[in-house]
Amino acid sequence: MDASVTPIPDQAGLSLVQTTDFFYPLVDDPYLQGRIACANVLSDLYAMGVVSCHNMLMLLAVSKEFTEKERDVVIPLMMRGFQDTALEAGCLVTGGQTVVNPWCTVGGVASTVCTKDRIILPENSSPGEVLVLTKPLGTQIAVNAHQWIDDPERWNKISGVTSVAEVKAGYRAATLSMARLNRIGAQLMHKYGATAATDVTGFGILGHATNLAQNQIKNVHYKIHTLPILTNMSKIAKACGNMFQLVQGYSAETSGGLLLSIPKDKAAEFCREVEELEGSPAWIIGTVEEGVHGASIVQDPTVLDV
Amino acid sequence: MDASVTPIPDQAGLSLVQTTDFFYPLVDDPYLQGRIACANVLSDLYAMGVVSCHNMLMLLAVSKEFTEKERDVVIPLMMRGFQDTALEAGCLVTGGQTVVNPWCTVGGVASTVCTKDRIILPENSSPGEVLVLTKPLGTQIAVNAHQWIDDPERWNKISGVTSVAEVKAGYRAATLSMARLNRIGAQLMHKYGATAATDVTGFGILGHATNLAQNQIKNVHYKIHTLPILTNMSKIAKACGNMFQLVQGYSAETSGGLLLSIPKDKAAEFCREVEELEGSPAWIIGTVEEGVHGASIVQDPTVLDV
Repeated sequence: MDASVTPIPDQAGLSLVQTTDFFYPLVDDPYLQGRIACANVLSDLYAMGVVSCHNMLMLLAVSKEFTEKERDVVIPLMMRGFQDTALEAGCLVTGGQTVVNPWCTVGGVASTVCTKDRIILPENSSPGEVLVLTKPLGTQIAVNAHQWIDDPERWNKISGVTSVAEVKAGYRAATLSMARLNRIGAQLMHKYGATAATDVTGFGILGHATNLAQNQIKNVHYKIHTLPILTNMSKIAKACGNMFQLVQGYSAETSGGLLLSIPKDKAAEFCREVEELEGSPAWIIGTVEEGVHGASIVQDPTVLDV
Repeated sequence: MDASVTPIPDQAGLSLVQTTDFFYPLVDDPYLQGRIACANVLSDLYAMGVVSCHNMLMLLAVSKEFTEKERDVVIPLMMRGFQDTALEAGCLVTGGQTVVNPWCTVGGVASTVCTKDRIILPENSSPGEVLVLTKPLGTQIAVNAHQWIDDPERWNKISGVTSVAEVKAGYRAATLSMARLNRIGAQLMHKYGATAATDVTGFGILGHATNLAQNQIKNVHYKIHTLPILTNMSKIAKACGNMFQLVQGYSAETSGGLLLSIPKDKAAEFCREVEELEGSPAWIIGTVEEGVHGASIVQDPTVLDV
């Protein structure tokens, strides 16, 4: 499960739902990095259908390599980004811990107290349903390609298929996508009866689809037929000799979308309302079949440049 | 405050009490380091009089300098120590996050959901009360002196006043003290009507006494007359030219004791019952006087070798 659910003693029916995550900065802008870190932490609650976060703590490590000036600029901006996204999610950051470390890190802890009916346990997917994804894939490639602009040796590998302008546009799109909350997706999971969900992060779309399939009560196999990928990223991944394993489904994502199983007749309406409320589309990317708790991508999946 | 207290919407009377802490290993034994880290995290709840922890998350960073074998030995031991202390505190570790980092780190998040009457807000201390401390001071010096055994240049500074056997004994005593939970102290705070408390960590006894005094509603000054210090550590500190500021009250502690304000007529009984239940003493170390929210150590305080 993406978050832990602990029944509270002496408080019948209430559970504490918690998750923690922290990582190393991956974008240049400290403010947006703070937003991404916060969205990434909260995403584990949203994947469980938990829409309200009641408290956040922030976990920070200041790099010992920072000059005093770098520290005084970077850390407050990163904290503000984190706090602004927490506010957007309707909760406060009430504490945390800051240390000095060789590497800068940022993350947090998100906690909610709620009754069981507010939680969608990721285990009730049925054959006949479909799979929906709420953010595009390809964030890792977008971030890496952007770093390569200043690294001629690496850049040469992809300069035949793309341009600096394309890579910068992809990086911007990835940054905004990573900073976006999965909250609306979580709200609509309840409205449209989603039966199981997870968020797509370090193991890639196929890794997380496999984990989710393994957690289902019924015997299901997730078959992915469509890969919505940030514009131009699939051709860049291909030019790198597929070191990212993007179309194979294993490219890591940061603060990725919700991958959810939902009744077939509700999926199109779910995607329509996500787009209406978020201004960003969601996609039906696969089917739920009978099988032995696994996941696969069909041969020659449809790759959408989005 | 040592932990954040967040009222839970829609659940009248209930609050979420949370704290997080992580740091770098300071003892050689990974198992005991795990225990110390867990005791240190929980200590912030106990300082608020919160006796039950409902959930813990573990925060780990594996050093990238570890060989595979080091990692496979050290990390499971550290995790087991952390989990064993959580069990001792009556709660489970249900999740967490592990990353790779230049430096190894260990810590966690402790959370409780409870009614307000289970919390002792650190603000109701009155003139006429006394200050009690539940663990000895000097853990930083004990840990450092132990490292110096293998560092002739440093060792020479203190070899005139101590021996390897004394330093090893002090290190053992410090390790066990740091690994001990402040839970019994927290329980007895309720029984004997403690009015404010904090746990002694990075700012030293005087730093934390000052912080606590500043948080009081009434105009109080904390006057510390007694410093219970791990055996032999005050003379070692003196031999170092007081770089640790131990008897000045600023030597950092890890997983230190509770410093609490308590009615004068209850203090001796509090200390007696701590010793009865824990097998380790607590001490009346100061008085609460009228004043302007500060703290001080009297000239020539009584230094107890304990």
